[in-house]
Amino acid sequence: MFVHHVFFWLKNADSEEDKSKLLEGLEKMKAIEGVRTLHIGVPATTNRDVIERGYALSWLLIFDNLEDQVNYQVHPIHKKFVEECSSLWSKVIVYDAVDA
Amino acid sequence: MFVHHVFFWLKNADSEEDKSKLLEGLEKMKAIEGVRTLHIGVPATTNRDVIERGYALSWLLIFDNLEDQVNYQVHPIHKKFVEECSSLWSKVIVYDAVDA
Repeated sequence: MFVHHVFFWLKNADSEEDKSKLLEGLEKMKAIEGVRTLHIGVPATTNRDVIERGYALSWLLIFDNLEDQVNYQVHPIHKKFVEECSSLWSKVIVYDAVDA
Repeated sequence: MFVHHVFFWLKNADSEEDKSKLLEGLEKMKAIEGVRTLHIGVPATTNRDVIERGYALSWLLIFDNLEDQVNYQVHPIHKKFVEECSSLWSKVIVYDAVDA
C-alpha cells in the first residue's frame, strides 16, 4: 500500500474562487486510473493543538504500490493539473508513506 | 468520509527500539472497531522538496463520519495507547479532513 497525501495552502487564502478552481482541478484528476482510494478534503471541525487546520484542500490517494504512484505522477492529466493550478497555491506539503 | 492522519516524530529519532514500541502501540489499536481503512506507514523512498520525510511513523484512519472518529478518540484502547506511548514522541501533527 502506498499512501500519497497532499495539503495545499492558497496564495489568496480567503479566495473562494481560487479554492473552487483548485477543487475543480483535483476533481479532473479523478479520471486517472490505478487509484485504490481517493479523497478530496477540507479541514474538519476538530480543533486541538496538534491538529493542522491551515490548509485549504487536501488530496489523498492510496495506491497498491509505488509503481502505480509513479504512473500517476507522470500521467498527462496530473501534469496538466500542475500546469493549470500551481499558480494558485503558496505551499504544498506531501506525505508519502508505505507499509511500516 | 472522515480522514484522520497522524505523523509521529520520535524523541530519540534514531532509536529502533522506541520506533518498535510505538509501532507495537499502533498495532494494538487495530482492535478498535468502526474504522473503514487503516494504514501504519513509514516515509516512502520518494524524495522531492515538497515531501516531508522526517517523521518516524504515520497512522492513517478513515472513518465513515465524525461520530466514528469521536468514538475512536475516547476508546479505552486509544486512551491506553496515548498513556503508554506519548513519552516516545517529540512532535505529533494531525490532519483531520472531511469531504470538500
